[in-house]
Amino acid sequence: MSAFSPALFTDLYELTMLEAYAADGMAEVGTFSLFVRRLPERRNFLIACGLEEVLTFLETLRFDEPGVTYLRSLGRFSETFLRSLASFSFTGDVYAVPEGTPVFPDEPLLEIDAPIAEGQLVETFVMNQIHLQTVLASKAARVVEAAHGRQVVDFGLRRTHGIDAGLKSARAFHLAGVDATSNVAAGQAYGIPLAGTMAHSYIQAHDDELEAFRAFTRVYPETIVLVDTYDTLDGVRKVIALCHALGPDCRVRGVRLDSGDLGDLARETRRLLDAAGLRGVTIFASGGLDENEIARLVAGGAPIDGFGVGTDMAVSRDAPSLDIAYKLVEYAGRPRVKLSTGKVLLPGRKQVWRVERDGSADHDVLGRRDDRLEGRTLLQQVMAGGRRTEAGRVDLPSARARVRDELSRLPRRLRALEPAAPPYDVRVSPALGRERARLQSAHAGDQVSS
Amino acid sequence: MSAFSPALFTDLYELTMLEAYAADGMAEVGTFSLFVRRLPERRNFLIACGLEEVLTFLETLRFDEPGVTYLRSLGRFSETFLRSLASFSFTGDVYAVPEGTPVFPDEPLLEIDAPIAEGQLVETFVMNQIHLQTVLASKAARVVEAAHGRQVVDFGLRRTHGIDAGLKSARAFHLAGVDATSNVAAGQAYGIPLAGTMAHSYIQAHDDELEAFRAFTRVYPETIVLVDTYDTLDGVRKVIALCHALGPDCRVRGVRLDSGDLGDLARETRRLLDAAGLRGVTIFASGGLDENEIARLVAGGAPIDGFGVGTDMAVSRDAPSLDIAYKLVEYAGRPRVKLSTGKVLLPGRKQVWRVERDGSADHDVLGRRDDRLEGRTLLQQVMAGGRRTEAGRVDLPSARARVRDELSRLPRRLRALEPAAPPYDVRVSPALGRERARLQSAHAGDQVSS
Repeated sequence: MSAFSPALFTDLYELTMLEAYAADGMAEVGTFSLFVRRLPERRNFLIACGLEEVLTFLETLRFDEPGVTYLRSLGRFSETFLRSLASFSFTGDVYAVPEGTPVFPDEPLLEIDAPIAEGQLVETFVMNQIHLQTVLASKAARVVEAAHGRQVVDFGLRRTHGIDAGLKSARAFHLAGVDATSNVAAGQAYGIPLAGTMAHSYIQAHDDELEAFRAFTRVYPETIVLVDTYDTLDGVRKVIALCHALGPDCRVRGVRLDSGDLGDLARETRRLLDAAGLRGVTIFASGGLDENEIARLVAGGAPIDGFGVGTDMAVSRDAPSLDIAYKLVEYAGRPRVKLSTGKVLLPGRKQVWRVERDGSADHDVLGRRDDRLEGRTLLQQVMAGGRRTEAGRVDLPSARARVRDELSRLPRRLRALEPAAPPYDVRVSPALGRERARLQSAHAGDQVSS
Repeated sequence: MSAFSPALFTDLYELTMLEAYAADGMAEVGTFSLFVRRLPERRNFLIACGLEEVLTFLETLRFDEPGVTYLRSLGRFSETFLRSLASFSFTGDVYAVPEGTPVFPDEPLLEIDAPIAEGQLVETFVMNQIHLQTVLASKAARVVEAAHGRQVVDFGLRRTHGIDAGLKSARAFHLAGVDATSNVAAGQAYGIPLAGTMAHSYIQAHDDELEAFRAFTRVYPETIVLVDTYDTLDGVRKVIALCHALGPDCRVRGVRLDSGDLGDLARETRRLLDAAGLRGVTIFASGGLDENEIARLVAGGAPIDGFGVGTDMAVSRDAPSLDIAYKLVEYAGRPRVKLSTGKVLLPGRKQVWRVERDGSADHDVLGRRDDRLEGRTLLQQVMAGGRRTEAGRVDLPSARARVRDELSRLPRRLRALEPAAPPYDVRVSPALGRERARLQSAHAGDQVSS
């Protein structure tokens, strides 16, 4: 990673606004709200993810000396402002939906109440992390759903977008239900179970494929053997020959198919293995898989016991970004709006109520934070005065359990891969609706009169 | 960033293969070749990018104590193997296409000759970095082309995939011709010019839009004013009022449109500004832009002086991944193949010759490294025995200049946004073609006889 000061992981305009706020003595509390404006075409819900990294960032945020020196070198900032950065820290309150919770358009994933400069500066980092991890967890939830109880392993590290996404993707995937990862660094960082045995290069480096299989199983007897380097079924026959030669010592756990028509090859592989008395040897499939292809294989009855999923999940290829926004909704105790075409903002501090019927989510109500409504509130206070609350102590196993529990309480149509009809119902509370109408007409009046 | 050991930024199977190689005393030199199998639908070329980070990684690669302790905790590796990691370093030779060079399918972007364990372990990191930065630089080259000389500013940091992608994207974009970035950390890390003034939140935090404009220009007289918070043309009229009030002191540089029909709004904005005698005030547009929308605005004659491009470029939304591969092509002096369906490999060490006619690239020839062919060779030795050569000293301004120069020498059809017909011609040298045929028939014979 290139050397940079974490506080400078921000857009230049955040800093120029900070200087302008300071110049005018604007230091009152602002509330910033983070939400997604609309769902990608092939998502019926999103899985909120990324809070842990955000809270760590907020707790530790400081301007270091190299950072201030760099800013000074730009010649854009006053010495007064640059000096003030030395004492900058985040002192605000944070409310957030717990990691692993399904969320819908317009619902805040997070709200920050803080002196406006603090909430402003952190916009870029907060958006970056929640965006990335929510994109990835939401994609992975679909892959897990498609696999229908079969094992799913993350093979994506080589094609995630960089080092940080490499780490965070494995975490987001595991949170969303993926069983294991090939990513050793993520194993170290997050304690996620690891999986992996051999690549084509290992086979190729040997002059003979069977000799490669034999050599590998001497070191790792309980391995999964990659069989498609030259010809998949020929590779399977060599595994059978190896197992017969080993006799009762054979502990080969499975074979991996990585190319060709995985459904047909899995059926033929199963037939060969069963005929050879190797019913315990499993079949693992990989190579260009996404949730649609997995669903197709599962629906077709392909005898595949586990899926390795790489690129498509690693970059969330069908929806690599979300229309996520982080907007000022209140300043100095007064709700704020924005009326830009196509981007109208709901004003004020908010809360989300999830209303369930017979254990299944029926609809959500998006209301003012001071509304008192029926249902379960989704946003919890995770930070107070710049320090984590008990609710802000995130742990990966609980977040993973939350995903499973929450998804089991979503209507079935939302868990399907196809677009849900109707989509989930998100309502606006009467008080919030009135507030929006009041501010819109106030600004319309302002424009007419100006 | 979560704590992890850089050497563990790898897939588990790399480490299990390392132990298996060691167990069999397989320590001869292997050549691994990194290439892209096919171009995404909307790319006529790729811009090679990411080498700098790869060379730094290879130069500094070591297993640290926490990394080895973690690996030991997995209970999968022998103590002999774990101890051997303490002395691991990268001692190989690296050949690579310089950053900023246009490349085509099957052409190696990089080849590593190294004791097989070294080339094997680094696969994941090398692929991850070259993939990311090549994806991003290739996308940005299209955006720059579409802007046709108008300024392009990177606004993507909030939606890049994580911290590393945030940094690397700004570098890749600048290399590909983007003028400036909003990303302060990238300014610090790479010396890229910065841009940015104000966001909607600044306007919203004031009770009155004109007062917000006035306050900001007191601090930054030469600013670009964001005018679409409530109503774009109303915002433009307020800028005009402000400039008239300031008189000859008005140094406002421009206005930014961030929503609505940018072409229509730009025309109307230009008309209002010109009528007010503010011909020097420029128009900057942002909000959901990609290369196609920019090309449409430019073709329609929209009076826009610069574009801020965010999400679409930041994640390369139409092609967030490449079918990139890192394959063993030679081991112990003998070329290697792989015959997996749809993924047949060209064997052996390679070089690429670019053949130009009248200053324009006519075709490339992909040959054996020991071929002697007509044209300019693209791969240079950038590392010898684990240390950078002079050609391995990458610098961003030269790479950026290379992009401009190399693109000017591509046929015009390749620089268009539409798919080039015909695509660029990449030929296989006679010697390489014979080698591939020889190895394919050798393996076909092997399968028949087995």
